[in-house]
Amino acid sequence: MLTIHGDRISGNCLKVKWIADHLGLAYRWVDVDVVKGEAKAPAYLADFPMGQVPAVVLTDGRRLAQSNAILLHLAEGSALVPADAFARAEMFQWLFWEQYTHEPAIAVRRFQRHYLGKPDSEIDPALMVKGRAALTLMARHLATRDWFAGGAVSCADVALVAYTRVAHEGGFDLAEWPAVAAWVTRVEAVLGIG
Amino acid sequence: MLTIHGDRISGNCLKVKWIADHLGLAYRWVDVDVVKGEAKAPAYLADFPMGQVPAVVLTDGRRLAQSNAILLHLAEGSALVPADAFARAEMFQWLFWEQYTHEPAIAVRRFQRHYLGKPDSEIDPALMVKGRAALTLMARHLATRDWFAGGAVSCADVALVAYTRVAHEGGFDLAEWPAVAAWVTRVEAVLGIG
Repeated sequence: MLTIHGDRISGNCLKVKWIADHLGLAYRWVDVDVVKGEAKAPAYLADFPMGQVPAVVLTDGRRLAQSNAILLHLAEGSALVPADAFARAEMFQWLFWEQYTHEPAIAVRRFQRHYLGKPDSEIDPALMVKGRAALTLMARHLATRDWFAGGAVSCADVALVAYTRVAHEGGFDLAEWPAVAAWVTRVEAVLGIG
Repeated sequence: MLTIHGDRISGNCLKVKWIADHLGLAYRWVDVDVVKGEAKAPAYLADFPMGQVPAVVLTDGRRLAQSNAILLHLAEGSALVPADAFARAEMFQWLFWEQYTHEPAIAVRRFQRHYLGKPDSEIDPALMVKGRAALTLMARHLATRDWFAGGAVSCADVALVAYTRVAHEGGFDLAEWPAVAAWVTRVEAVLGIG
């Protein structure tokens, strides 16, 4: 059986849970407390040297890390990975953008504000600027399209919704970006969450 | 014909050039000067709203951004994308790790030191710590394997080599990680660079 090592406060981990639930995959969930540093503990690093969550042990015992790589692997052959080559490339584009640009602003600001309890005055102001720019770029894309890649929901939407739907915990008000808020509701409906 | 918009000081852009050269794809190269802010100019943003290089216009006129997404799209069907599902998942894992962990430390330190001319004392010390940890993780992987994913060179090696081969410009001495230095030479030989 698939084993998912994760922390339920982490959108990156929830992505993997939602995909597994959506695809009807049986799995065992092992809690890893990120705030307590459990992803940097020697026993965890021995199995997952990247020292991050989520990470999975596949049914054949092989291990894999990086949330979006896990999504792509679990969803392969499903409708969440477009068959069309260009739609698949668009999905990859948004998956990399999510990890490089969106997550380091929106998820990091949420973590500092909501989980570490930092007041706004002690949070790097660049995180708000970058997070707002990311949400504005998403809204621009969603002005003409319902989903991020191709014409249907894909792994890109699952990845992007993870921290977007809790952006308010980072101090971002999605009411400013109604196209993004409407898309969050669509993705939540597909995944049966929210 | 494929058009690549890029800056030759950017490893992310060179990845795309190397893949196109390796695959024998005809392309036109359009210089975008990142230091001068040309990737944030209105005309560029109109075509590529993510405001980053590299970005490409495919032969059918469709546009794509994000270096590793472009690699995957151009290399699809070639030996640089493993046919085996798990090897492909490993490739994805390293591609996401490269953008989330490796590039933001090693490429950013190189840019500040080599292109902006900052003295070491003015560079965030965390970049050296994180960059060294990234190189150490790579060396650990390469202690038992010649390539990052599956048993052959893949897009993961091309992506990872881009900033690793110029890590010295960021103040990292690859002599400390001989397995990494040897792997750089192997990848350079495959790509016909270096």
